Amino acid sequence: MPTIAFFDSGFGGLTVLRALLPLMPSARFLYLGDTARLPYGAKSRQTVARYAVSSAEFLLAQGADMLVVACNTASALALDELKAALPIPVVGVIEPGVQAAWKLSPLPTSLVPASVLVLATAATVQSRAYATAFTALGITAYEKACPLLVPLVEEGWVDHPVTAEVLRIYLAEALAEAPTVRTLVLGCTHYPLLAPVIARTLAELGHPLEIVDSAAATAQAAAKLLPATSATLQTPPTFYATDSIEKFQRLGSAFLGQPLPEVHLIDLGG
Amino acid sequence: MPTIAFFDSGFGGLTVLRALLPLMPSARFLYLGDTARLPYGAKSRQTVARYAVSSAEFLLAQGADMLVVACNTASALALDELKAALPIPVVGVIEPGVQAAWKLSPLPTSLVPASVLVLATAATVQSRAYATAFTALGITAYEKACPLLVPLVEEGWVDHPVTAEVLRIYLAEALAEAPTVRTLVLGCTHYPLLAPVIARTLAELGHPLEIVDSAAATAQAAAKLLPATSATLQTPPTFYATDSIEKFQRLGSAFLGQPLPEVHLIDLGG
Repeated sequence: MPTIAFFDSGFGGLTVLRALLPLMPSARFLYLGDTARLPYGAKSRQTVARYAVSSAEFLLAQGADMLVVACNTASALALDELKAALPIPVVGVIEPGVQAAWKLSPLPTSLVPASVLVLATAATVQSRAYATAFTALGITAYEKACPLLVPLVEEGWVDHPVTAEVLRIYLAEALAEAPTVRTLVLGCTHYPLLAPVIARTLAELGHPLEIVDSAAATAQAAAKLLPATSATLQTPPTFYATDSIEKFQRLGSAFLGQPLPEVHLIDLGG
Repeated sequence: MPTIAFFDSGFGGLTVLRALLPLMPSARFLYLGDTARLPYGAKSRQTVARYAVSSAEFLLAQGADMLVVACNTASALALDELKAALPIPVVGVIEPGVQAAWKLSPLPTSLVPASVLVLATAATVQSRAYATAFTALGITAYEKACPLLVPLVEEGWVDHPVTAEVLRIYLAEALAEAPTVRTLVLGCTHYPLLAPVIARTLAELGHPLEIVDSAAATAQAAAKLLPATSATLQTPPTFYATDSIEKFQRLGSAFLGQPLPEVHLIDLGG
């Protein structure tokens, strides 16, 4: 029975765990949210790598056989350091989303070049991680920073007129820059909760797009790396956080799609 | 020429500096935003006190004669520790706002008890700092957590229909709980930028309130502690931040009401 460990700066990565649970029903799952040191977005590459490696070492000591870096910032800034530091497979959230978008994207024509639209946090856009990965495949990535979406999701306003209006503004601005895109990548682990309202808003704007959920794509990439197991009774995941247990538990259930059991408070220092 | 030092986890405290500049035209001003370790809101009292004291010691070493804790979380969680650690006067943002609201509030009657409404971040509400200070004066404080307001201000949507709609929702919810209040305290250093749209929204709701800007109240309290000086040519403030210099400079000018000069990057460890 493999032990699959998840790491995020907060609880957004629970959307990746949620997508993996039905794919690996007999695995053991660990999830660590480094809530004491979030957000990683404003921190330097060196600091994020140090935080990520210390979090990963804790999970390794708990018996992890694989690490899913369920955090865009840590995937963008620390994936190489994590792969170098750990003796187990490490999967980030960026490459699987990029691969899924690449497979979905129509072949470029002389009229419509290969391009995608990526919605992400300001920190992820600033990291250029999606742009770099798509450029390597010959695809132009239009990146739109959407700083209000995480706070709106954390306020619980997932199906709310204000969120629809904010999305209408962000998407209209992005589509004005990228009128020929056919594919939209949700480049933040909070955004899968907004997938229905994003689809509805795109339809209202008369510009429907294929939506790539990078959380789901990451879960599929992780499942492929481990041997298939027969479905058995599932062990409930074990949750760790470095601070703000109450908020983790309260908001986390919306991300996981089921109530969270006890969240264990741990201290990683610093 | 006194040196007045400001400390905040970010740049919100620039609204307090902005209010003090015309009151102390000949002082020397230092401002430190501990941007590498923000937000303080999700952190424990012990951690916030450690961060605040290390920031204050840096400012003391630069020659500070007074410290203004221009941050609600640090004022709520670390004011006593700062006063104990420093040999100079220390002013927080909570007590001056509470005193100003107390002076403005109508005397209670048998029909209308003494009460105020406080808008603040979730962390400040959770700290109970305003509720405790108002209770000591015999005033009931209704506190409303408004987690979307800081992100909206930082997005630059100060005069924007979405912000007006969010305020309409927050204020209607708060006034339903506190129908007899006559005074509103802006319990976050980001909120003075929203004062005009808050006043407009209250008028539209048919419930105008006296608005207490705790940034302005704090500036007045700080000015009273220092000897009056004659107006002379002002030295530009010196700005320090522990990370995210670019964002500090870009957004800070809206808070300060004038362009920011160079921001110095410093390392406080941690």
